[in-house]
Amino acid sequence: MTAAAPTDRTRLRRAHERGHHDRATIDAILDATPQCAVGYTIDGAPYVTPTLHWREGDHVYWHGSSASRALRACDRAEVCLTVSILDGFVLARSGFHHSVNSRSVMLFGTAFKVTDPAEKEARLTAFIDGLFPGRTGMLRPNTEQEIKSTTILGLEIAETSAKVRSGPPKDDEEDYELPIWAGVIPVAMQAGDPIRDTRNRDGVELPAHLRGWRWPG
Amino acid sequence: MTAAAPTDRTRLRRAHERGHHDRATIDAILDATPQCAVGYTIDGAPYVTPTLHWREGDHVYWHGSSASRALRACDRAEVCLTVSILDGFVLARSGFHHSVNSRSVMLFGTAFKVTDPAEKEARLTAFIDGLFPGRTGMLRPNTEQEIKSTTILGLEIAETSAKVRSGPPKDDEEDYELPIWAGVIPVAMQAGDPIRDTRNRDGVELPAHLRGWRWPG
Repeated sequence: MTAAAPTDRTRLRRAHERGHHDRATIDAILDATPQCAVGYTIDGAPYVTPTLHWREGDHVYWHGSSASRALRACDRAEVCLTVSILDGFVLARSGFHHSVNSRSVMLFGTAFKVTDPAEKEARLTAFIDGLFPGRTGMLRPNTEQEIKSTTILGLEIAETSAKVRSGPPKDDEEDYELPIWAGVIPVAMQAGDPIRDTRNRDGVELPAHLRGWRWPG
Repeated sequence: MTAAAPTDRTRLRRAHERGHHDRATIDAILDATPQCAVGYTIDGAPYVTPTLHWREGDHVYWHGSSASRALRACDRAEVCLTVSILDGFVLARSGFHHSVNSRSVMLFGTAFKVTDPAEKEARLTAFIDGLFPGRTGMLRPNTEQEIKSTTILGLEIAETSAKVRSGPPKDDEEDYELPIWAGVIPVAMQAGDPIRDTRNRDGVELPAHLRGWRWPG
């Protein structure tokens, strides 16, 4: 949980007061949502694939089908994994000072593939149980073929930066005199009531890990 | 609103039944959230910047400070703009068939800068009023310098594809016999109550465009 020195890619050039490099801030943002966007290149052209990530210690992981072109393009390649959480719309007294409250992390590095089948299974278990504690213990066990046809990529949390904005609008001083409503519209992900599969067996109850389930953020 | 022929980058290689190329589907997803991730390269390395976009006709736009390195790197360069909306966690009877319900769009192309000051102002007005109808009419007008120090980038909606998954889990047929709770946990962005800036003038009421404001999705 130490701070890494900023590199040319992770130094915040503007709005320095919003930049963070400490691991506590970075980990908290990575853990507050499973949603991320992975950037990579194919033949030099940029691609961004939305996916889900999870963090274990000093690494983040994401996964998909071993047939995925996106995952194959990331393996042993430079990637940029970005997490962004929108917390609110900041409504100012001028259009120019409108903004958003948000928390984001950019991670840079060379992605690696998790190859050992036992480790792959442990990583996938951590992913599902991280979102739904204890769920994997109730499931039909993974087959060897399922583990084989799943690719898990990892990235070390090393070259990284976070950006956080919170609080009210910051208007030009003279604009505070104007009779304009300014403030924040907070937004957040919310879970709704679980929707039971119509093919569930009779008498199967909603398990504890899904009762009152809340978005991690 | 015609369908563009898929290119090598936009043809869905797997799960073809989830792929869409028609403009109605693509526009509906682009309009359902302002959140996007823009992928670009600097010195050949991939970068992903989270930002907000808006659509006007056949183009999407995003903006920021003219000093932004991300925006300068995108101008007249190949970019990939991705929008992803998470609609739910799909909980299956095996770990392997766990999935998410989601709607996503990938747009590829060469970004261009909006240069004419009057057009820039019109674009920014469309952005703010698109989220908060009528708001710009109540604001302190933009200054010439503010328009100048704002960069707006655009991208034609041409080379694009959408991917949509919805509905219940799809388990292996024999697994439906297992007494495991399966189904969907729906998730969605929700707006909270507006938070008034403590520096608002006395008597300034919440305007109509913010009363009962709902996330676009």
